Amino acid sequence: MKASVHWPRIAIVGVGLIGGSVGLAALSRRLAGRVIGVGRSAGSLAEAKRAGAVTETTTDLAAAVAEADLVVVATGVAAIPAMLDAIDAAVRPGTLITDAGSTKQSIVAHWEKRRRSRRGRFVGGHPIAGSHRRGPAAADATLFAGRVTVVTPAKATPAADVEDVGGFWAALGSTVFVMPPRQHDQLLAATSHAPHVIAAAIAAATPPEARQFTAGGWRDTTRIAAGDPDLWADILLDNAPMVAKALSRIAGATEKMLSALEKADRKKLVSLLKAAKEDRDAVGS
Amino acid sequence: MKASVHWPRIAIVGVGLIGGSVGLAALSRRLAGRVIGVGRSAGSLAEAKRAGAVTETTTDLAAAVAEADLVVVATGVAAIPAMLDAIDAAVRPGTLITDAGSTKQSIVAHWEKRRRSRRGRFVGGHPIAGSHRRGPAAADATLFAGRVTVVTPAKATPAADVEDVGGFWAALGSTVFVMPPRQHDQLLAATSHAPHVIAAAIAAATPPEARQFTAGGWRDTTRIAAGDPDLWADILLDNAPMVAKALSRIAGATEKMLSALEKADRKKLVSLLKAAKEDRDAVGS
Repeated sequence: MKASVHWPRIAIVGVGLIGGSVGLAALSRRLAGRVIGVGRSAGSLAEAKRAGAVTETTTDLAAAVAEADLVVVATGVAAIPAMLDAIDAAVRPGTLITDAGSTKQSIVAHWEKRRRSRRGRFVGGHPIAGSHRRGPAAADATLFAGRVTVVTPAKATPAADVEDVGGFWAALGSTVFVMPPRQHDQLLAATSHAPHVIAAAIAAATPPEARQFTAGGWRDTTRIAAGDPDLWADILLDNAPMVAKALSRIAGATEKMLSALEKADRKKLVSLLKAAKEDRDAVGS
Repeated sequence: MKASVHWPRIAIVGVGLIGGSVGLAALSRRLAGRVIGVGRSAGSLAEAKRAGAVTETTTDLAAAVAEADLVVVATGVAAIPAMLDAIDAAVRPGTLITDAGSTKQSIVAHWEKRRRSRRGRFVGGHPIAGSHRRGPAAADATLFAGRVTVVTPAKATPAADVEDVGGFWAALGSTVFVMPPRQHDQLLAATSHAPHVIAAAIAAATPPEARQFTAGGWRDTTRIAAGDPDLWADILLDNAPMVAKALSRIAGATEKMLSALEKADRKKLVSLLKAAKEDRDAVGS
């Protein structure tokens, strides 16, 4: 991926944690002249401006994207397909478009359905750098540094578009992986979506009277359950079959340990916990 | 709990993270004149001494506890019952004894079986302040500060013994709760033991090729899976029926979300995620 690039005008649609961080990173790395924050809430836009994440703000999507060289869609996943249509109707032909949605199959498929009549050049993206925190106040210029961004072209996506969108995410500091949308959704079901369900289940299954007897283990295990319920419901629903499969693999692994536990098979239990520890240690703290 | 107390000689059996932290906290708070570290490994004992967690070390359990006013057993749970017998055979009559095991029913029951012939005064304890880190090098004088320690008397335990052992843990900086061993084990199954199994299951169910697509969520959710497999196997086996019940509650909560997901019932899924978020938010970061 080429990493030295410049976009005179970037429009960011949705100035929350991710959109705000894209703006901060682009401005602090001098990748953009102007960064136009587009949103529906005047409050969020003002907050993003105060945070230095954007140079200007507007609620007029069409006007903002019409003068942009690059449009980044950083809204919740459920809003992205319709947003892409609205953006595409207003951009100058050839404008680069990417998104930061946590699912990719349905978004990319939606774009591809009308590929022949599209004006812009869209390639889906997903910076794997979320947080349970929200909003432009949590934005961070280094959010993508050293993190992975997955870029998910369709079969018909021109290589030059992949290169340009990949180059943008790389310029924000992330390591770019290119793979089909389906493979992305399968991997993320295992690493993010299913663990989110499980974290929520642990939090929900803990009786209120037990709360004061929690320590770091419980707090770590359940931390992502503090994420936004609406945003996460949309992510999970959009990737439901793969989330179900990943949950079933986790249930299977749990069942193996439970079975060793119920048989008081210490040797088996230790060997399962050892294997899990090796899997965990392979990722690092 | 009375919090200003002094023990001229404390013997700590097992100088790992917890035992080492007890020593460091007792010495830094000037609760003890001498702290005798007892262990089987000369390496660990030397490390504890270097860390300032103990003032002297020995591999001779009987000699160490014979001159102690207070004995703290901080070994893995499987070793504690037999260790209590060996300690009790060597202490002066009336010596205070406590432990730091993560399970309490079987340990307390073992002591109580021979209560009438015991020399020492044992009351079980559990400082809820673990870590996935291990060993005396990870010991921390503030490990118990602001944390909860559960003290678990049996029905026959004299109130003065509960007061003395509770006073010790309070003097290390922790907030002391007194409850029956069974209640402790039930609460900890929900807040610690079952989440440990689940964290290990998520780590084990994540395909190796997905590892580079993990972010903070996965790392938080699986962090405790890096804990010691042997120590954890013993904790889980010792509390197996309650761990199984807690796992079944978590499976039930997961099943509810999965069912909403498979029916594409967004309203239900959001409401379940909202409730889980409230449960998580009630505990804090």
